[in-house]
Amino acid sequence: MEKKDIRALLNSVKSGEVSVDEAVLQLKMEPFKELGFAKPDLHRGLRQGTAEVIYGAGKTPEQIRDISRALLDGGQQRVLITRMSAEAAAVVGAALPLDYHELGKVGIIGGIPEPDGDGSVVIATGGTSDLPVAEEAALTAEMLANRVVRLYDVGVSGLHRLLAHGEEIMSARAIVAIAGMEGALASVIGGLADCPVIAVPTSVGYGASFGGLAALLSMLNSCASGVSVVNIDNGFGAGYLAGMINHMGRK
Amino acid sequence: MEKKDIRALLNSVKSGEVSVDEAVLQLKMEPFKELGFAKPDLHRGLRQGTAEVIYGAGKTPEQIRDISRALLDGGQQRVLITRMSAEAAAVVGAALPLDYHELGKVGIIGGIPEPDGDGSVVIATGGTSDLPVAEEAALTAEMLANRVVRLYDVGVSGLHRLLAHGEEIMSARAIVAIAGMEGALASVIGGLADCPVIAVPTSVGYGASFGGLAALLSMLNSCASGVSVVNIDNGFGAGYLAGMINHMGRK
Amino acid sequence: MEKKDIRALLNSVKSGEVSVDEAVLQLKMEPFKELGFAKPDLHRGLRQGTAEVIYGAGKTPEQIRDISRALLDGGQQRVLITRMSAEAAAVVGAALPLDYHELGKVGIIGGIPEPDGDGSVVIATGGTSDLPVAEEAALTAEMLANRVVRLYDVGVSGLHRLLAHGEEIMSARAIVAIAGMEGALASVIGGLADCPVIAVPTSVGYGASFGGLAALLSMLNSCASGVSVVNIDNGFGAGYLAGMINHMGRK
Amino acid sequence: MEKKDIRALLNSVKSGEVSVDEAVLQLKMEPFKELGFAKPDLHRGLRQGTAEVIYGAGKTPEQIRDISRALLDGGQQRVLITRMSAEAAAVVGAALPLDYHELGKVGIIGGIPEPDGDGSVVIATGGTSDLPVAEEAALTAEMLANRVVRLYDVGVSGLHRLLAHGEEIMSARAIVAIAGMEGALASVIGGLADCPVIAVPTSVGYGASFGGLAALLSMLNSCASGVSVVNIDNGFGAGYLAGMINHMGRK
Amino acid sequence: MEKKDIRALLNSVKSGEVSVDEAVLQLKMEPFKELGFAKPDLHRGLRQGTAEVIYGAGKTPEQIRDISRALLDGGQQRVLITRMSAEAAAVVGAALPLDYHELGKVGIIGGIPEPDGDGSVVIATGGTSDLPVAEEAALTAEMLANRVVRLYDVGVSGLHRLLAHGEEIMSARAIVAIAGMEGALASVIGGLADCPVIAVPTSVGYGASFGGLAALLSMLNSCASGVSVVNIDNGFGAGYLAGMINHMGRK
Amino acid sequence: MEKKDIRALLNSVKSGEVSVDEAVLQLKMEPFKELGFAKPDLHRGLRQGTAEVIYGAGKTPEQIRDISRALLDGGQQRVLITRMSAEAAAVVGAALPLDYHELGKVGIIGGIPEPDGDGSVVIATGGTSDLPVAEEAALTAEMLANRVVRLYDVGVSGLHRLLAHGEEIMSARAIVAIAGMEGALASVIGGLADCPVIAVPTSVGYGASFGGLAALLSMLNSCASGVSVVNIDNGFGAGYLAGMINHMGRK
Amino acid sequence: MEKKDIRALLNSVKSGEVSVDEAVLQLKMEPFKELGFAKPDLHRGLRQGTAEVIYGAGKTPEQIRDISRALLDGGQQRVLITRMSAEAAAVVGAALPLDYHELGKVGIIGGIPEPDGDGSVVIATGGTSDLPVAEEAALTAEMLANRVVRLYDVGVSGLHRLLAHGEEIMSARAIVAIAGMEGALASVIGGLADCPVIAVPTSVGYGASFGGLAALLSMLNSCASGVSVVNIDNGFGAGYLAGMINHMGRK
Amino acid sequence: MEKKDIRALLNSVKSGEVSVDEAVLQLKMEPFKELGFAKPDLHRGLRQGTAEVIYGAGKTPEQIRDISRALLDGGQQRVLITRMSAEAAAVVGAALPLDYHELGKVGIIGGIPEPDGDGSVVIATGGTSDLPVAEEAALTAEMLANRVVRLYDVGVSGLHRLLAHGEEIMSARAIVAIAGMEGALASVIGGLADCPVIAVPTSVGYGASFGGLAALLSMLNSCASGVSVVNIDNGFGAGYLAGMINHMGRK
Repeated sequence: MEKKDIRALLNSVKSGEVSVDEAVLQLKMEPFKELGFAKPDLHRGLRQGTAEVIYGAGKTPEQIRDISRALLDGGQQRVLITRMSAEAAAVVGAALPLDYHELGKVGIIGGIPEPDGDGSVVIATGGTSDLPVAEEAALTAEMLANRVVRLYDVGVSGLHRLLAHGEEIMSARAIVAIAGMEGALASVIGGLADCPVIAVPTSVGYGASFGGLAALLSMLNSCASGVSVVNIDNGFGAGYLAGMINHMGRK
Repeated sequence: MEKKDIRALLNSVKSGEVSVDEAVLQLKMEPFKELGFAKPDLHRGLRQGTAEVIYGAGKTPEQIRDISRALLDGGQQRVLITRMSAEAAAVVGAALPLDYHELGKVGIIGGIPEPDGDGSVVIATGGTSDLPVAEEAALTAEMLANRVVRLYDVGVSGLHRLLAHGEEIMSARAIVAIAGMEGALASVIGGLADCPVIAVPTSVGYGASFGGLAALLSMLNSCASGVSVVNIDNGFGAGYLAGMINHMGRK
Repeated sequence: MEKKDIRALLNSVKSGEVSVDEAVLQLKMEPFKELGFAKPDLHRGLRQGTAEVIYGAGKTPEQIRDISRALLDGGQQRVLITRMSAEAAAVVGAALPLDYHELGKVGIIGGIPEPDGDGSVVIATGGTSDLPVAEEAALTAEMLANRVVRLYDVGVSGLHRLLAHGEEIMSARAIVAIAGMEGALASVIGGLADCPVIAVPTSVGYGASFGGLAALLSMLNSCASGVSVVNIDNGFGAGYLAGMINHMGRK
Repeated sequence: MEKKDIRALLNSVKSGEVSVDEAVLQLKMEPFKELGFAKPDLHRGLRQGTAEVIYGAGKTPEQIRDISRALLDGGQQRVLITRMSAEAAAVVGAALPLDYHELGKVGIIGGIPEPDGDGSVVIATGGTSDLPVAEEAALTAEMLANRVVRLYDVGVSGLHRLLAHGEEIMSARAIVAIAGMEGALASVIGGLADCPVIAVPTSVGYGASFGGLAALLSMLNSCASGVSVVNIDNGFGAGYLAGMINHMGRK
Repeated sequence: MEKKDIRALLNSVKSGEVSVDEAVLQLKMEPFKELGFAKPDLHRGLRQGTAEVIYGAGKTPEQIRDISRALLDGGQQRVLITRMSAEAAAVVGAALPLDYHELGKVGIIGGIPEPDGDGSVVIATGGTSDLPVAEEAALTAEMLANRVVRLYDVGVSGLHRLLAHGEEIMSARAIVAIAGMEGALASVIGGLADCPVIAVPTSVGYGASFGGLAALLSMLNSCASGVSVVNIDNGFGAGYLAGMINHMGRK
Repeated sequence: MEKKDIRALLNSVKSGEVSVDEAVLQLKMEPFKELGFAKPDLHRGLRQGTAEVIYGAGKTPEQIRDISRALLDGGQQRVLITRMSAEAAAVVGAALPLDYHELGKVGIIGGIPEPDGDGSVVIATGGTSDLPVAEEAALTAEMLANRVVRLYDVGVSGLHRLLAHGEEIMSARAIVAIAGMEGALASVIGGLADCPVIAVPTSVGYGASFGGLAALLSMLNSCASGVSVVNIDNGFGAGYLAGMINHMGRK
Repeated sequence: MEKKDIRALLNSVKSGEVSVDEAVLQLKMEPFKELGFAKPDLHRGLRQGTAEVIYGAGKTPEQIRDISRALLDGGQQRVLITRMSAEAAAVVGAALPLDYHELGKVGIIGGIPEPDGDGSVVIATGGTSDLPVAEEAALTAEMLANRVVRLYDVGVSGLHRLLAHGEEIMSARAIVAIAGMEGALASVIGGLADCPVIAVPTSVGYGASFGGLAALLSMLNSCASGVSVVNIDNGFGAGYLAGMINHMGRK
Repeated sequence: MEKKDIRALLNSVKSGEVSVDEAVLQLKMEPFKELGFAKPDLHRGLRQGTAEVIYGAGKTPEQIRDISRALLDGGQQRVLITRMSAEAAAVVGAALPLDYHELGKVGIIGGIPEPDGDGSVVIATGGTSDLPVAEEAALTAEMLANRVVRLYDVGVSGLHRLLAHGEEIMSARAIVAIAGMEGALASVIGGLADCPVIAVPTSVGYGASFGGLAALLSMLNSCASGVSVVNIDNGFGAGYLAGMINHMGRK
């Protein structure tokens, strides 16, 4: 309930249009809408008018289809579905106009919007095995209306591959640095860039990578400034945050 | 070596002023200055013209004093010293006009600049024991010319304390959420805010907090979007990143 | 051996009906029945006359069926079977009148008893993925004759969802707070409630949740008073304990 | 703001005593008092009218003294101070009538109240090294107006010591089981008792106890029903919860 | 090369039958047979004349069959095969007179020998899920010619079950205490017995048992004397060691 | 209460000397003395008539002195004090005839008894830094009336040092293998010996030894048969168990 | 861009053949080729002219086949494929002359070259279960033109097996010591050899081996000099490094 | 016993100078000297004729002094003392001509020898806090007669600092890469160099560096070939191994 709504309600009370009891009920029953600053469901609502997100893991294909349809029926233009299995894509695609990006396990309904951010978001990966996470990040950022530059397979053991993209790194508004194994990519990019770097450790690796723990710890200990970290394999979270930062200029 | 410098050198070669051998040597000897996008020392250079940073841990008071003096002699207006012991402050303060903030173990020479960011940075803590980390973050952000709003002791076990500051949380351009123990503050703030939230786990706690591990894992697993994490007790890193984001609009 | 039994035995010795040797043997052979306070099998015996519990994991469908039948033949009114697979339910259901709750993998024979506790037990979850654990807890509490209030999907990243249920939280006699990922729900509920809160970390999550470790550590470090923790995914243990507390008034 | 307060305010608006603007302000400015169910500061407020708690760790002796005085000046009858160093006790004791219990590092002002709980709380320890944690728990429970039975040094490697206290264990309303090293005490007591058992792992031990981790994991895996766990060395939390349960009958 | 062989060789040198060069070669080429105290293959050779052991994990059914046949052809009376799959048992059983104990995944050729140890070995388990490990231990000890007493499902949450077997525990020459979850059995038995207790943590459990880690740490921290620990699920190692101790009197 | 005591009591009941009520009381009040097999305090009672043990850690010098005196006054011939600080030794030594072994932090009153075990116990260490643990083990075994052979500094990186003692290793009745760092000594000795080997990991090392964790895991995974493990730095436990095994022949 | 290329370019500028603008572009566009010391792709390029390596894990059979063909078409004589599944081998083998080594999951095209190293590389394993890792190491070293000596199943629990190969160990130029479980092999070999020893922990084992962690920590703590460690199961890395060392004499 | 010694002994037997019995005894009593390939004490003996090493940690200043003197008296030219405290240096320096390098806590007697290796060893560090470990490595390598190139403070967050030393990195025979925090230096150098890289994680850092664990895991997961790892802070081990490799050409 916005300030003006409270005022309106109180004026109605004053004028006698609304009884005191009824007003008590309204103020009591919806106490949190009045807070104004609570978002209905963070993971679901990206940016009003642009896209809704469905986290597909642990949902049946039918559940995903029905939620998607409900969102579209409710006037939503676009739907982003993350962690979507091929099976789910088949079921949803049979009923709705779905673009399924298999690599990133991402489904999109309503297409990707035109970029309207302040600049571009760079998505960089250490190796090709990190691509599923990278695509989840990239498509999330694109659904948030960001221009995305993909720099894949630029791991630190072959520095020249990364250095060859100095231009893109320098001109980015936000960079998502994705790497498994030793996770050194975040530090190296952090040292080259002067925008926020969001590091995503991946579970790529074996042995002492311990499911991404090595990369996670490495990234948390980055000696470069401007680097922060999200959960292992959390491409969505990184893409979302990078997109948010890329729109800071217009807030 | 900037583009124009290369051009000048090549023109000198063309004109004969500089011999081919000499040009080879110059191009070979300083190949990295030409890259243009490498920063001299990331941790040291905050934003040109504003402040230089000295990481005080592991440095002797005399080293800190001498580096500070050298920076000032080199034309630097302001110096920020983090993890500075009281002993170091005494030594530096005897030689230079130092403001020492004991709580955050931060030393400042040249004063805090006027805020010129796009909005304000909120620094929130779960408890009073987190204040040293919070002050490191707050003073770092202030030295980066940000307006800082401090919301201390707003831990989630007494939600009303946090909810009472909805206005500040909603209007922030970046929020640093600092908490030890269970680290739930980051998720709760992440759910309320719509700007980037930088979570800082602290080593505050005992027993199964394992030196901040509990808070760290909790924050990495935050189910709120827009949350990323820095190292345990890394107030500097969080303040730096928040300040960077708060200046994104003008980049 | 109860006091009166010992007395009877001694009187028999005194009267010569029982020889000293025989009495020695009896006292020596069954020394532990005399203790009186040891329960036959804790996990099996919920509350005499109400229900017996079978832990279904690691038992064959046939074993579960036969144990159930034996309990019923022995006069047991109700049987609760936890961690019961659909396969086991099919086998048991073919032979006995079983209600199978698939979500919580719980089987019930003999129906749920009327609540006779002092108040109600609230079962709250952070997300929908926590429902299997929640249903195990809820059905266990109901089989213990508790009134159960389910508050599902009230995670802390959307605080309003939780705050909308303040009434139920305030009037509960015991609350089971179930959450995976960062496990912050326990602390937030602990701060709102004034009854015991039993926190159940779940293995829901990925990456740095490390199979529930993040939520476990978070809950153990809760800064709210009145919160204690059970094993990861241990819905039964939490429901059992909550039900026990809800019956404290009549002990 | 209670329902009746809102009604009164609305009636004042209706009658014109209070202007609409002023009412908006009141409803807006104190939105959380209206929630009614948020406690001001959980760790501080034990039970209204009985005692306030100060967590002494990380506070200076002077801070503890001043907070204590403020509480007493505010009408508080009793103050409980946990994790209080001998130094702090000396400072506070010089200004206020303090009883300092050195073993448990607990300070008490205003004396221990008469027990008014439903029964008694048993505090059991595996060894003598666990006594500091046990005394923190025992004194906390006593300050909550509980009758406390201390069963110290009844570790499982000498079962007879524990079994000799069957009576107390059987008649308890809540039991706090405190043990370091292998932490088996909780399971054994859990098997003997039929009331809630709150397990407290302690950091007592060496080598593979890893600061209490062994006992913590052991207790979380207890195969006895009715057992829940608090943080390592958290005597306060266990005593608080046990005392809360012991008062459930009167809620 | 035994002492008498060296002497024979030297005598041959003295007599001229063997040249010095040839003798150098022999002494040089087989230097380690002369050591005398190195066992050919520890896991294979249990006790000469009694049984050979084959560790079945990671071997194909055909490999196990062929090794078994070779051992029998070489004059071995009995063969013990541990970690043997049902598939392997089918293949070996088709060719050789195999007794397959499915519960413990143990295969035996040549039958179990008569006990000739000094007393009996007790194998105790906390629950029924520990039986596979227990049977591996029991059959190993029996193949080592030990009398084995099985005390299964005597976990500490129902102490009376264990105490009812005081006689067997007191009269054992060695006890193997097998338990998952909290692993408290080892400490309790260690407190009752006065012979060596070999503790075997099992991977039975879920959540914070972390694959047996909880039981392992618990057992390593046992406060009872005379307790030592082997690897998680290592029934063979415990049975072997217990059998060795039971034969100490005759060494 | 021994069998003969029960018999005597029953005879007294039969003869009328003791009333039935009184007998009930006696049988009820001391139910656990009748168990017969529970040891009063395991860590304290080594072997009746030989020595009592005091665990010195966490006890004040005065407490140790008073307990020692009480034991001696109670007729105890010898007292063994482990983890005894030099300060405690000074206090106890001033009052009682104490031999203090500084290296192993062991105090002995009443001297070491004559060996009466079946053979000898070998105490082997990987390096000289392991000596404190080794001496605790050796003196414990000696106080248990065992002949002890010390093989110190025979680590596996210089195999010849160990192999030179093949005779002692082969003829031992029990071996305590003590090592920090990689803990390989236990496996190598386990491969050479044919008696039980008790492995003691020590906290000696740095970096990735993680306070003895590396040696502990290494020893638990030993591929040699007959090896079991005690807690990190637990020299007492290993010496006690080795001594117990060395006396098995006479049980 | 090599020195001579830069010189040539500059001469062209001097002579006017190349304009200044064009030269700027060339120097700017390919700045990293000029570095000279960056290798194109380390994992791919073993030693020029000898072999290229494809890491097969996570690549489809078709991808492996196509990359292999492209390398051969590009003039590459030999291709080494690691972590290659049998399925991939079938697909590649149908199109190209592939030798597939199933044990080590290694595919080789173009055959193994003649050894041209300074001496031989020894590959030793603790058990037969370590052979897959050993063969990956051995074949990698052979593809690098090294003579390889295989010493398999020489674990430390049967020392004589290892000592029998003193000659090979002493004469090696580099040794790869591969072991799971307790990983003691590296220390023992490190003590015998006087060349670099590369330790490879394997994931062989169960229980407290924690997927190779025990062996990894053991090897990192090796008290023998000259020992270093690679990732768990990283046979390729060890074979590559050993082969590199074996060619040091000719660098 | 060397081959020629055995031959001499056998000839004495043949000639009758030595009896068969006596010869048996000699061959039996010193079986391991005959092995020839076992080094007396690996950590002590660097390279015969060059230097002996004393590991100073855990030794008293007097012990270090006496061992040093004994070595010199025994004809040793040079002594290297690692982990030497300033106190120890004072004591040793008072008696012997000691050069004490405080930064690396290294003491040297007899001076550093002339380099005679095949090339140079590069010692690189990520930061200045790593210098103590680096100096331990550098001085160890120098005492092994290696030419050492120090590249300090070339961490990856300022790549240009490292790239500026491409020449030294490319021409090294072995590189020691030392870094704490995220440990990325090893991977980056591994990608630039074509000689063996020995990575040394350091305990430099805070929070989630967990005492060097982050750097250790990062280095073990390095995606660059030719990289191996030693224990945290193990400068000696890395310097020793690098020096050994640098002398491979002459073996």
